Amino acid sequence: MSNTLRNRYRADLRELEFQLFEQAKVEEYLGKDRFEAWGRDEIRMVLEQARDFAYEVVGPLNQVGDGGCSVVDGRVRTPAGFKEAFDKTYELGFRALGAPAEFGGQGSPRVLTCLVEEMLSGSNSSFLTYSGLAFESGELLEAFGTPEQKHRYLPNMFAGKWGGTMCLTEPQAGSDVGAVSTRAVPLGDGRYRITGTKSFISCGDSDLVENIVHMVLARIEGAPAGTKGLSLFVVPRVRVHDDGTLGEFNDVALGGIEHKLGINGSATCTLNFGENDACVGELMGGVAHQGIKQMFMMMNAARLAVGIQGVAVAGSAYLAALAYARERKQGSSLENFKDPNAPKVAIVNHPDVRRMLLDMKARVEGVRALVVKVAAHADRALAFEGRDDEQVAYHKGQIELLTPIVKAYGSDQSFRVCETAIQVHGGAGYIRDYGVEQDLRDSKIFSIYEGTNHIQAMDLVGRKLGQNGGANFQALMGDVQGFCEKLRDHAAFGADVERLSKASESLMTAAMTMFGWSGGRLPLVAANANRFLEVMSEVVVGWQLLAGGALAHEALEKGSPEKAFYEGKKAAAAYFSRNVLALVPGKVDMMALEDETAVTMSDEAFATV
Amino acid sequence: MSNTLRNRYRADLRELEFQLFEQAKVEEYLGKDRFEAWGRDEIRMVLEQARDFAYEVVGPLNQVGDGGCSVVDGRVRTPAGFKEAFDKTYELGFRALGAPAEFGGQGSPRVLTCLVEEMLSGSNSSFLTYSGLAFESGELLEAFGTPEQKHRYLPNMFAGKWGGTMCLTEPQAGSDVGAVSTRAVPLGDGRYRITGTKSFISCGDSDLVENIVHMVLARIEGAPAGTKGLSLFVVPRVRVHDDGTLGEFNDVALGGIEHKLGINGSATCTLNFGENDACVGELMGGVAHQGIKQMFMMMNAARLAVGIQGVAVAGSAYLAALAYARERKQGSSLENFKDPNAPKVAIVNHPDVRRMLLDMKARVEGVRALVVKVAAHADRALAFEGRDDEQVAYHKGQIELLTPIVKAYGSDQSFRVCETAIQVHGGAGYIRDYGVEQDLRDSKIFSIYEGTNHIQAMDLVGRKLGQNGGANFQALMGDVQGFCEKLRDHAAFGADVERLSKASESLMTAAMTMFGWSGGRLPLVAANANRFLEVMSEVVVGWQLLAGGALAHEALEKGSPEKAFYEGKKAAAAYFSRNVLALVPGKVDMMALEDETAVTMSDEAFATV
Repeated sequence: MSNTLRNRYRADLRELEFQLFEQAKVEEYLGKDRFEAWGRDEIRMVLEQARDFAYEVVGPLNQVGDGGCSVVDGRVRTPAGFKEAFDKTYELGFRALGAPAEFGGQGSPRVLTCLVEEMLSGSNSSFLTYSGLAFESGELLEAFGTPEQKHRYLPNMFAGKWGGTMCLTEPQAGSDVGAVSTRAVPLGDGRYRITGTKSFISCGDSDLVENIVHMVLARIEGAPAGTKGLSLFVVPRVRVHDDGTLGEFNDVALGGIEHKLGINGSATCTLNFGENDACVGELMGGVAHQGIKQMFMMMNAARLAVGIQGVAVAGSAYLAALAYARERKQGSSLENFKDPNAPKVAIVNHPDVRRMLLDMKARVEGVRALVVKVAAHADRALAFEGRDDEQVAYHKGQIELLTPIVKAYGSDQSFRVCETAIQVHGGAGYIRDYGVEQDLRDSKIFSIYEGTNHIQAMDLVGRKLGQNGGANFQALMGDVQGFCEKLRDHAAFGADVERLSKASESLMTAAMTMFGWSGGRLPLVAANANRFLEVMSEVVVGWQLLAGGALAHEALEKGSPEKAFYEGKKAAAAYFSRNVLALVPGKVDMMALEDETAVTMSDEAFATV
Repeated sequence: MSNTLRNRYRADLRELEFQLFEQAKVEEYLGKDRFEAWGRDEIRMVLEQARDFAYEVVGPLNQVGDGGCSVVDGRVRTPAGFKEAFDKTYELGFRALGAPAEFGGQGSPRVLTCLVEEMLSGSNSSFLTYSGLAFESGELLEAFGTPEQKHRYLPNMFAGKWGGTMCLTEPQAGSDVGAVSTRAVPLGDGRYRITGTKSFISCGDSDLVENIVHMVLARIEGAPAGTKGLSLFVVPRVRVHDDGTLGEFNDVALGGIEHKLGINGSATCTLNFGENDACVGELMGGVAHQGIKQMFMMMNAARLAVGIQGVAVAGSAYLAALAYARERKQGSSLENFKDPNAPKVAIVNHPDVRRMLLDMKARVEGVRALVVKVAAHADRALAFEGRDDEQVAYHKGQIELLTPIVKAYGSDQSFRVCETAIQVHGGAGYIRDYGVEQDLRDSKIFSIYEGTNHIQAMDLVGRKLGQNGGANFQALMGDVQGFCEKLRDHAAFGADVERLSKASESLMTAAMTMFGWSGGRLPLVAANANRFLEVMSEVVVGWQLLAGGALAHEALEKGSPEKAFYEGKKAAAAYFSRNVLALVPGKVDMMALEDETAVTMSDEAFATV
């Protein structure tokens, strides 16, 4: 096996451009107003630069990073090469791309930052967590901080000099955020003394930055129990003077790092705040008891980022499997399988390998289309701001509704795709050299962090479905049904669109079922929430794939010379409709069985040990 | 989190006894004839001893073993403690349990060796590969060796003094066994000079044994291409004199070991045979060109062993998740979810955690029932031998038919269950300390080695369905339908049995569809083979679970005091019917779509890179 096949990240720019310019039609809003500086050429240039950076700098550190971080003298030491690459990420402008100009950014559209993030994360998902969390913390500060706070922290955070984290989880408070017990005691000067332990903090410490600005959920003395009593504090590792220079250590100590299944280059830390009673925090924006509301802004961004990580790693695993399948020779073709002297063929010729590859392709491109769609909603909401409130509400509503889907379905599919990538590789897939086993290990965390996928499902059925009186969900269903109406007699996809239509009708039934249970049968809601999220995701992803397939069909009809590329887009759409959407009604029918076995059985019945 | 929850293997003996005595009704053939020495008490005693050995000796080495093997002075060094535990395995008689008395064994029924293997493998799957391959190689020699060969090798192989391997794979010959290029040249004295390289050889070298007897597929000079020209050779690492003493090194050199995703305690070796032209092999049984036929006996045993590994690791992961869910407190109960002061509850109270646990339980117990069923078929075939040819043919036929299902479905479910175990653990599941992430890594190999799961699916649809003119499959379907007839109006399971009945009808349709394609549409057969294997597995496993559930129902009706245990058996059956069997018809309907997209699209259409 040639060395070129091992651990080499690949990105298919043609596919990324299709998502932007053909499917998401971003040129409808680019090149004018807020996005005046951004046209097709600028986007292309950045995509190419990011790909090259991923190929040449970030990707080659992926296997190195898998060796993990270490703790030296109480501080996290990141893998060799991370520091140089981290600095270069900022130097080349990849991280601040989406930041406002006043903080050194370029105000790029979300659709672009998303795809840049996909390539950098796909080539090395551990590496990107450091700058990702710094950026998202910065966005949080930008949204809710006082002018002084922004001034004090933001320039360095967006410039890659200082990092950032989100500190929610504590040993006893994981999915149950309301159980946070970190305390904040007023110091009388508007600042607070912070005391508590936070665990599972991604990038909680590192040698990449001079300082780390932690966003810490804590409870001010006397505040009520639960999430409502939580406030958000800005807690730098090293105190910052008013002039922005660094002061003394702020008593934020590294308790240790976790040894994990994957993303080993990303330090997962336990942080002890105020072990020596000398940890001082500022109330975010100067307002108390708004912690959860404020944090949710960052959580939503982080959840979308996890979906991007998902498609990123899955996309990398898919293209690695494809490259392997094209090169690896094994067996003869199916027509000749009885002739021992028949020539050996590359395994991409074997039907089951092709089935696996197309399955991966459809899931990767479907989730990617969804990610770009959500990013385009964000861009459009911004473009319509102050001009068309109805449009802004529609676009923002779709982001709210689709965020749990991007996070949960994106992460589940990522793991599934990585698993398939191993299977395409056969025995080689199980070997460290080939890299796809690392993809599998890295991808598992996506279903867990930033709210487990069940938390996402409960968010979807418990909050998002009924949000705005159900208007967001109705708008989405209207969009899907409008698409089905328009393409019902499509020459290539008529029957496939009909399956989408049936699946979306089933989804409506499922939503009604969930609604019916929400009165007195909450356990059924909870026990079916993941299934609901899955079928809703399949409908949305199937719709996006068919939309892409129809565009590809049109391009071919018009005589495009890119026959293979468009054929591939059509194939992914057809496959997903026939092998995934086809099963949606059956899954919804299962909900009608109202199976309560798991809920009603006794705890002792699970096992006698 | 208490230390007791980490890395501790658990086995539920009550469940194992249910499988043997209630469901498989092994007492019908135990205690008489061939199995005269084996009654309920003897079986129980061995199960208890094996459990204790797994708890005390083998299990505690699982995480140690994950550190991997090393190569020192050209030899494999196994993890610390493996040697002592290996010797103790033989000393206590666990490995030779099923071997004939003349070779130091106890002639135990297969059903028992299976469950002993489950516990030892579940507590440490890497560790068990060494003795497992030694035993299976021994069985191969016992079946096909000349009396001299048996005499020379077997006593030491069954006694744990010498190891054994199966050497099929070569760098260019993985799934395509017929491409084997290792050569055998007659030396004129009945022996052969062996030259070639074998890769991915499990336990190809170790410091556990004095000698290793390799079972090597090679091609005698001038033999035809493909599998038909292959012969099997007995190739010890160190030559063995006629009196059984060790002679000189037989030129079998360790080329290296692989660094893998999991089963790190099991050395995966490259072996170079005859680098110095001094490797001598004996023709197995003295007959040429029978290599594949002979090897298949060992391969079938190994495939069942992989299915056992699957349920073993999955069973361990399930009970680990259950223990965690019973201890870990997080959030309040669903009825109180709005009250921040409500008491925190163990996560086993949350509906989605219960759903995951029951899903795992059903898959583990269903596959276990299938494994025990196949083992009981083997026992019964032996019991009927020489007395009732029809019965022997029936039982042997079922083993043939079900072997690919045990291997492929067992391994796929294992991975799925381990994935769910991580999800139940949340963030803790991603951490090395808790052990379930190792289960996930270990379990992935099961879908790959001993023939990938697609190879199993092709074996099922290409050979096994039509074997004996289709009689084996028809007999199985007759058994399932007979069960459905009998229980159609069952008080507890009537509707669930009806779903099984519908699913089995769909399976028949699927079989006819596959048969219809087998003439001129082989790509469709190949592209749907995995799906066929899946639905057939679901029908068989669903049947076994419902059979168990019905027995549990009966026991409760009769007033058994083991209410919780039997309630659990009923719950697993009901869950599987309502959440897995319910979807079988939909999966079969998809086959009728005859989707050929993956097969017919061009290679270039997969991606532009």
